[in-house]
Amino acid sequence: MEGTLILLRHGQSLYNKENLFTGWTDIDLSEKGKEEAKRAGEILRRAALYPDICFTSWLKRSIHTAQIALREMEWEHIDTIKSWKLNERHYGAWQQHNKEAIRKEVGEERFVAIRRGYDTPPPPLPDGDPRLPQNDPKYAGLDPSLLPRSESLKQTRRRTLNYFAEAIAPQLARGKRVLVSAHGNSLRALVMSIERLTPSQIVKVEIPTGEPILYRFDETLHLLQKSLPGTTASGGS
Amino acid sequence: MEGTLILLRHGQSLYNKENLFTGWTDIDLSEKGKEEAKRAGEILRRAALYPDICFTSWLKRSIHTAQIALREMEWEHIDTIKSWKLNERHYGAWQQHNKEAIRKEVGEERFVAIRRGYDTPPPPLPDGDPRLPQNDPKYAGLDPSLLPRSESLKQTRRRTLNYFAEAIAPQLARGKRVLVSAHGNSLRALVMSIERLTPSQIVKVEIPTGEPILYRFDETLHLLQKSLPGTTASGGS
Repeated sequence: MEGTLILLRHGQSLYNKENLFTGWTDIDLSEKGKEEAKRAGEILRRAALYPDICFTSWLKRSIHTAQIALREMEWEHIDTIKSWKLNERHYGAWQQHNKEAIRKEVGEERFVAIRRGYDTPPPPLPDGDPRLPQNDPKYAGLDPSLLPRSESLKQTRRRTLNYFAEAIAPQLARGKRVLVSAHGNSLRALVMSIERLTPSQIVKVEIPTGEPILYRFDETLHLLQKSLPGTTASGGS
Repeated sequence: MEGTLILLRHGQSLYNKENLFTGWTDIDLSEKGKEEAKRAGEILRRAALYPDICFTSWLKRSIHTAQIALREMEWEHIDTIKSWKLNERHYGAWQQHNKEAIRKEVGEERFVAIRRGYDTPPPPLPDGDPRLPQNDPKYAGLDPSLLPRSESLKQTRRRTLNYFAEAIAPQLARGKRVLVSAHGNSLRALVMSIERLTPSQIVKVEIPTGEPILYRFDETLHLLQKSLPGTTASGGS
């Protein structure tokens, strides 16, 4: 029984458009982002990649991406399971700030170390900050010690891989076709693990938006094949 | 631990608007139906009825009703579990036909016996009919002997209550708040069982569209209270 994992990174959000650090800020897709989700659905439909189950983060830009893609496929009846562990990297005190303004404020070296490094988190959210996850009723029921105040890519990787092992891998081992709609950095964490990349390799990987990445596994979760159905479907010339 | 069940019947679909028998035909909500879903979300938000989990049928009018209501509540991160056992009653050979035309064709007595009776199914879909569920790829993986060619309300009740027992009741027993977005007849089956109505009582019950019905249970699934948060929220005078 072959399991199939389809990774889908959401497209443009209203914050990307304004060049702000988003992280856990729950901002919606822009019109362009909705179009990207629709196109992802078209790619999956053309490749006949109908999933058995869908996973998303708790952030609406990933939830809506999955909804729009599945609607485009006329394949909306599958269960959708959601976890904060698939959320984007938490950008701490940088969230909702303009990227260029932060770059000027902290200097190029520190900016790149945090933004593109592997284990340097941005400055944490201070006590009482309205952006702390525990101030959002969605997260209020969770153990507050689990909830980040900022994250390095390494920390994002830890909770994402924990979720992969506890919820997604068992589906793949049963031979299911699994769609995961998530974010640049939570997907990077999955790709790092699946493709056995080093920290210095993964920080250079850019996950494309709105273009599904496909992995096939055998029943021991040994990787058999990686492919990009979007590029295949549009012809090999 | 009190469990809470919120039943939500989808609003107007494009077929209701044209007075056609819909059944398992997978037709979308009309604009009015989308407005009704949004209003249901407003009612639940005002009453602070934030669900822990959502169940829908496999039909998009119930799936979209849940999506729109949860979006209105800013509460989209809960898991959504879907089952064909919550689908509308299967209307057999009457599906996609005009209700008045059928009434003229079969006569008032037979029309009322089938439409408003408890154990009379409409004429079944014949072999080779494109409307048979097994011709839809969504249902193709299911045991064909489970899939109806038409249903009486009694038959709809059987599979809906089977699903209630296997999937929904365990959540209520754990004290969860459960939203079920479904259809006139699948919800009628649930109401019949919860309120212990007789066949002659249930056929007279009309489930309102877009107006949530709330049931509270103790941990033995003994019914504690029924209420209509929509009417309460709009004032008691």
